[in-house]
Amino acid sequence: MRRHHRRRSSTPSIDFGVDDDDDEEETSSDARMKCVSCKEDYSSRDAGTCRECYEEASETEEELKREIEDLKAKVNFLRFWAPSDPLHHLHQQQRTAPFFSDVVLVASHDESGNSTPHPVPVPANRAVLASRSPVFRAMLENEMEESLSGTIKISDVSYDALRAFVTYLYTADACLDELMACDLLVLAEKYQVKHLKTYCEKFLISKLNWENSLPNYAFAHQHNAKKLIDAALSLIMENMDKLSKREEYKELVDKDPRLVVEIYEAYLSRQVNTAVHKDSVAKA
Amino acid sequence: MRRHHRRRSSTPSIDFGVDDDDDEEETSSDARMKCVSCKEDYSSRDAGTCRECYEEASETEEELKREIEDLKAKVNFLRFWAPSDPLHHLHQQQRTAPFFSDVVLVASHDESGNSTPHPVPVPANRAVLASRSPVFRAMLENEMEESLSGTIKISDVSYDALRAFVTYLYTADACLDELMACDLLVLAEKYQVKHLKTYCEKFLISKLNWENSLPNYAFAHQHNAKKLIDAALSLIMENMDKLSKREEYKELVDKDPRLVVEIYEAYLSRQVNTAVHKDSVAKA
Repeated sequence: MRRHHRRRSSTPSIDFGVDDDDDEEETSSDARMKCVSCKEDYSSRDAGTCRECYEEASETEEELKREIEDLKAKVNFLRFWAPSDPLHHLHQQQRTAPFFSDVVLVASHDESGNSTPHPVPVPANRAVLASRSPVFRAMLENEMEESLSGTIKISDVSYDALRAFVTYLYTADACLDELMACDLLVLAEKYQVKHLKTYCEKFLISKLNWENSLPNYAFAHQHNAKKLIDAALSLIMENMDKLSKREEYKELVDKDPRLVVEIYEAYLSRQVNTAVHKDSVAKA
Repeated sequence: MRRHHRRRSSTPSIDFGVDDDDDEEETSSDARMKCVSCKEDYSSRDAGTCRECYEEASETEEELKREIEDLKAKVNFLRFWAPSDPLHHLHQQQRTAPFFSDVVLVASHDESGNSTPHPVPVPANRAVLASRSPVFRAMLENEMEESLSGTIKISDVSYDALRAFVTYLYTADACLDELMACDLLVLAEKYQVKHLKTYCEKFLISKLNWENSLPNYAFAHQHNAKKLIDAALSLIMENMDKLSKREEYKELVDKDPRLVVEIYEAYLSRQVNTAVHKDSVAKA
């Protein structure tokens, strides 16, 4: 019997270091394991998990996937066909029956502030609008003009954006490009539809680059989109040397210099923090 | 340098067997790996994954968890406060404003078939009912009595079950016990609310035991609940020796002997399959 249980200590790197630089290689390559996932051999320096932990993790993954399936089914169940949805319209015409719409929204003024002469109404349900937006709820419950007339006028919006907005209230889905994401974020902020605001913010953050960071920073400030502010600010601070040369920078200095001040303040604060951190690391 | 790359072959058990019975222990325990998850040492026979696969799996898990968070937020956004919800009622009274309810449901006959003299109406919205159930949609869109009167009579149901049913249509949630799950499954089947039917079926399957397997089997047959039929049947077939002694068995033979025949047919078919399987294994 040549059993020699050379167990690795719980702090292997220290042990290896003491003996010899080559020892780690020697000890660890001795036996090679076969990964149950990729089926490749690996040595102790590439060790991941034991089989028990692997099996537990696989079970967890399966459970999470089942939960996702359940939640997706729930979303599908709770989602409506929006009355303004093109497919719904088609469906409607075929059935020539109403969708029990009891209110309409109209884009009373376009994005340039011009009054729309014959706005196309977007049909909706009071119950849906009220359940999705506290602003609509207040409007519809309190015998305001909108409630009495059954028409809600929305200003500074295109018909397309308004329709996408209403569709989102029914389905929690929107087909976004950057312009539409900005339009919907504005509506979400105005009507306090948090879920939509987060959705648009995430989309805009995913599209951030140095070219659009300043306009996005200013836009986010205007509509109180904190995560977008932070993301844009990070990107701007990474390119401070190029900042003042940009056309948008000069425009912002003219239009809203306080926002420019905030950029410099954030930059300086980060520099100070980095210096303090370096200092404390050096002392330690 | 004492490097000796004793790589394990891809079929280690055969290699080990040829040499010596103790060799496996010796070779594999030579170097022990540290599991990055449970921090315990493990030997090659307990090997799980390499570090790369572990890291990938961890990333996947994080992604799945983020997806779950997103889906949960979506469900919360799409969910309504049901007009029949007790909390909603409280909220309602405080605000003394309507929930834009445009239809009521009433339990016209209780479970025993007795007409309810003064049924309490459960308020709802046509748009919600129509979007959740094709039966309600047909009823409400086609100028049927229900649509004209704004009152939908539901027979053979208690007020509590009806309220829970309507609440589910708004929230995709219900507080179940076995009785309520049966009541809601019946309504879900009648009004073709698939999501609710699946929900009740899953609950009843989770509560299955030998004692309730026969009544559940009969109930599932009556309401076309296939998964519940299968689960109950499996449990019954595990206890065939005790089956004919049960009171519920005798009742079922009297009431619906075809269902009893199906049990025996399934049992026999399973026995034949098992025999064929054993036979083919023996020949191989």
